[in-house]
Amino acid sequence: MANGFDPNGMADLDPAARDMIQRRQKLLGPAYRLMYADPVEIVRGQGTRLWGRNGEEYLDAYNNVASVGHCHPDVVAAVHAQMQTLCTHTRYLQDEILDFAGQILPSFGAPIEHIMFTCTGSEANDLALRIAMHHTGHRGVIVTSEAYTGNSFLTASLSPSLGRNAPAGDYVCRIAAPDSYRLDPATLGRVLARQVAQEIEQLEQRGEGIAAFIADSLFSSDGIYAHPTDILQPIAEVVHAAGGVVIADEVQAGFGRSGDKLWGYQRHGQIPDIVTMGKPMGNGFPVAAVAVSRKVVERFGNEMRYFNTFGGNTVAIAAARAVFEVLHRERLQMNAARIGAMIRQELQRFAARDERIGDVRGAGLYIGVEFVKDRDSKAPDPETALAVVGGLRRRRVLISATGHHANILKIRPPLVFSDADADRLLTEIGNVLAAI
Amino acid sequence: MANGFDPNGMADLDPAARDMIQRRQKLLGPAYRLMYADPVEIVRGQGTRLWGRNGEEYLDAYNNVASVGHCHPDVVAAVHAQMQTLCTHTRYLQDEILDFAGQILPSFGAPIEHIMFTCTGSEANDLALRIAMHHTGHRGVIVTSEAYTGNSFLTASLSPSLGRNAPAGDYVCRIAAPDSYRLDPATLGRVLARQVAQEIEQLEQRGEGIAAFIADSLFSSDGIYAHPTDILQPIAEVVHAAGGVVIADEVQAGFGRSGDKLWGYQRHGQIPDIVTMGKPMGNGFPVAAVAVSRKVVERFGNEMRYFNTFGGNTVAIAAARAVFEVLHRERLQMNAARIGAMIRQELQRFAARDERIGDVRGAGLYIGVEFVKDRDSKAPDPETALAVVGGLRRRRVLISATGHHANILKIRPPLVFSDADADRLLTEIGNVLAAI
Repeated sequence: MANGFDPNGMADLDPAARDMIQRRQKLLGPAYRLMYADPVEIVRGQGTRLWGRNGEEYLDAYNNVASVGHCHPDVVAAVHAQMQTLCTHTRYLQDEILDFAGQILPSFGAPIEHIMFTCTGSEANDLALRIAMHHTGHRGVIVTSEAYTGNSFLTASLSPSLGRNAPAGDYVCRIAAPDSYRLDPATLGRVLARQVAQEIEQLEQRGEGIAAFIADSLFSSDGIYAHPTDILQPIAEVVHAAGGVVIADEVQAGFGRSGDKLWGYQRHGQIPDIVTMGKPMGNGFPVAAVAVSRKVVERFGNEMRYFNTFGGNTVAIAAARAVFEVLHRERLQMNAARIGAMIRQELQRFAARDERIGDVRGAGLYIGVEFVKDRDSKAPDPETALAVVGGLRRRRVLISATGHHANILKIRPPLVFSDADADRLLTEIGNVLAAI
Repeated sequence: MANGFDPNGMADLDPAARDMIQRRQKLLGPAYRLMYADPVEIVRGQGTRLWGRNGEEYLDAYNNVASVGHCHPDVVAAVHAQMQTLCTHTRYLQDEILDFAGQILPSFGAPIEHIMFTCTGSEANDLALRIAMHHTGHRGVIVTSEAYTGNSFLTASLSPSLGRNAPAGDYVCRIAAPDSYRLDPATLGRVLARQVAQEIEQLEQRGEGIAAFIADSLFSSDGIYAHPTDILQPIAEVVHAAGGVVIADEVQAGFGRSGDKLWGYQRHGQIPDIVTMGKPMGNGFPVAAVAVSRKVVERFGNEMRYFNTFGGNTVAIAAARAVFEVLHRERLQMNAARIGAMIRQELQRFAARDERIGDVRGAGLYIGVEFVKDRDSKAPDPETALAVVGGLRRRRVLISATGHHANILKIRPPLVFSDADADRLLTEIGNVLAAI
């Protein structure tokens, strides 16, 4: 992410963009970041396309929020109908929230029995961790080394990917990222489970215990590690044996993104106690949720209460329900599986003739392409990744980069990505790779 | 708030309501609460009215979120237009967020220069506190004894009104609620400022310093203390002298609710470093914000970044902008002042002939009516308050109760409350008081 204000780079920008960047800096302040040093202005969206002010069309291969496609008419219509009728909170009785809960709950599998609504994935993870701490009476939380858990005080402290200035806490424990490109995939699950056991031991030696292990099953901000899929189960066993709670963070991996399963943890055969979800849930309407087992939420529910003014309000539920129905009706999980596999296969072909590509990986429509300085040392090559992202932006294809060194292309389009979209993406990646 | 599941009370309910309560308990779990032991099902809203399934009409004298009126057509239209056009995040350039920031920022006064968007008031308070901690390098936070700051881990720990099971933290310090009914209003500001100074001294003795003082200027969950209005300035002086940050929590008091001023802190002549806002900001669309001085956010912005996937997205901004424009165009702050004063005046007349009413207070359309066992002891009388709330519910007028003992009626209608609405509310309060 480029900083919104780069005095050195500003001279190259067109005057309208420069003016907007300066207004942005003045009005929104220094904590906001833009994508690209040469930022994109977007005024309209439809399906997998975004448009700039002068009608320039972009292919969106990055936005996982608009998962059923930008401005999907069914979601727009559902939100509009409900906005005209009633927009209010969950302290009155309403059928709609119960109907939707009844629709989505069976998808999680045992032992998940209840669903609670928040507005954002950060709120969902924050609440999940509060519930885990309340249930266990402990505070220790284990995350992977480049995890992103959220933007609240608690979840930011559990987000090493935010860097060393994120809030700290003596309850935060880290294990390695499941770097299947550098570590042996055959033993990765065992190695990480052993690290988890060691962290728990250290917590207990400090008189603290484990509240939770929380992970995104696609390890999105660690660098997109969709395989092997036998990592999370051995970890869950260690966590459960120590009395801790297993939280599956499905904010990025959920709602069919992986192609294989509706929920990413299902690819790992993991049995979580809590599942959190967000981003694509309302196709941009702020809605997120925590699904939880009766056993784990019981004490929290009896001793506390949870009220979120907008969380699960009538309109949020209408949006979530429309998205969930479109996802199934348009078979978007299947589309993610098919198009994603095809894109990865083509990228493997690029890799066969291009030494800079160290690894192509992912699941469904979440794809990582790792650039390295050479294949022996596997030294990260963020410059090439940045050049590809920037080159694609100039060719009006939007993607980004991820991982500790930002050397991994992050390809994460709306799930309605078509064959033609995939062709365009691959053609432009080929063009950019040939040019740099 | 009644618990959603009360086996003893269930027998009196009609079968449809009983069925919905049981489904709710089963699907949403034990942490959800309903208003009323005999809960209301709501299916439609317009202006100050809500309707149940069988067409029964309720007067809404409680919902401060639907501040410009339930389903205001301008807000519905603005959200619909933007939903059809583009719903995306703040990492692209967009004019609308800058235009709205430019519209709202001048209302805060110096030294507030920037605005950052979140989805909920809890997120806004959480972010404000993170910024204050980052700026000061300290963690100590001072709140009033019955404050509600939010539902995240950090803000719940700063919400004594959630009870003793809320998350704890050694950085949480409390001062008394500004109980103008029991304490001497003439010295209240000085007394509380002295308590703040003592808390800061204790923090410093523990090797900790003060990060922030945060308060809602109407002290909504403390018991609604709109007067005296000279409390916050002396506190702010003490906090600033110790290097701390002053946060004005305008989630409840803001957007004209007090009638006197757009922002509650302005009634106190307070100069905050950070202003947080939420609830009525999008009339139910999830949008909230943190407005902050350059000085206080500078280090946070340089060393951290803040990104909230849905916060300030294009549709959230459309909603907030429509609400802000309706608020001004329909002169709702003036309406709140006029109708609120009239309601308080009438309630004072009730008090003159009804010993159970110990105090009538508030500002604009945020009104508290405190019930006491007798006026000499001022012993709280929650039973009468509960009976009035329940009696009004049966007469289809919705209000609630607040304060540590829940003995204070909380009257907090949409700001479009009319003379006729006020008449109906007062008539029904009179009827209920006569009947119990």
